[in-house]
Amino acid sequence: IPRTITIVPNTYNPPDNFANVAGKIYRSSFPRPENFSFLQRLKLKSIVVLIPEPYPAENQKFLQDNNIQFFQVPISGNKEPFINIPQESITEILKTVLNPENHPLLIHCNRGKHRTGCLVGCIRKLQNWSLTMIFDEYRRFAAPKVRSLDQQFIELYEDMEIIDYALINNWLPVAW
Amino acid sequence: IPRTITIVPNTYNPPDNFANVAGKIYRSSFPRPENFSFLQRLKLKSIVVLIPEPYPAENQKFLQDNNIQFFQVPISGNKEPFINIPQESITEILKTVLNPENHPLLIHCNRGKHRTGCLVGCIRKLQNWSLTMIFDEYRRFAAPKVRSLDQQFIELYEDMEIIDYALINNWLPVAW
Repeated sequence: IPRTITIVPNTYNPPDNFANVAGKIYRSSFPRPENFSFLQRLKLKSIVVLIPEPYPAENQKFLQDNNIQFFQVPISGNKEPFINIPQESITEILKTVLNPENHPLLIHCNRGKHRTGCLVGCIRKLQNWSLTMIFDEYRRFAAPKVRSLDQQFIELYEDMEIIDYALINNWLPVAW
Repeated sequence: IPRTITIVPNTYNPPDNFANVAGKIYRSSFPRPENFSFLQRLKLKSIVVLIPEPYPAENQKFLQDNNIQFFQVPISGNKEPFINIPQESITEILKTVLNPENHPLLIHCNRGKHRTGCLVGCIRKLQNWSLTMIFDEYRRFAAPKVRSLDQQFIELYEDMEIIDYALINNWLPVAW
């Protein structure tokens, strides 16, 4: 049987620590231009950035060219002894992240380990995961720089406001 | 404004090494009864098992109760010096795994590290990921027991037959 085979020779380079969190919510480290062709395959509608620094010009251009909404909620990672992620920031970010109208959505910080890991941990709490499995996942991405402070933050995050908000908006359970 | 809030107090226990691979393809270690309520949330249509041992009675009951198709393709993990995963087995499994009619689909072996990691690595090759990022992901799940033999298997896996088969069936690119 004669047939035509199309082979796509492009290599796609996901950003470091890229993964699918749930449904069309993704996580990664800071995307660089060499990751853009990969990210285009996700057909992103939104990017949520957790760092305070201004977004690089080439990343801004990528957003514009692909019609991607940009949400920047700057947080500083947990660090002994006095820097803690404010709970309100996480709640604010979750209101954006859980909204299906913003999906497909990518969350990133710099290395996709700590700040992103804390946020994903809070999403897992909303999915009622056991802390054991939340921490296992956190450590998989944060290794070898695992922070107890981050795990404690996830454990103590008091999510009544966001649970309330998400239920009213019919965003729970988080879709797979 | 008076309103009713429903709080779901159940804790869900994903199996160890559970993750979303792409679209509605999932991976994990061997699911135990304490993981079943979590797995039900995924509304699985199929489970692909990579181990040769008979499936436990309680897992078989879970399949029946939830109307889940069962595919068992027994393979032995790569092990020096003479045990190698046969390429044909991976190709056969991929024909099941890539078929959207079988999704949502869970792949598992025992620990969700090596055999499952090899299979997921081959899926990433079909997604044209760079080997660097394929290996990073492999190591994230296999750590601390990373096997070079597994990474070499992924690198050398010659996927023309499955590419051909998948293209004819319109399964590529793998949906996110």
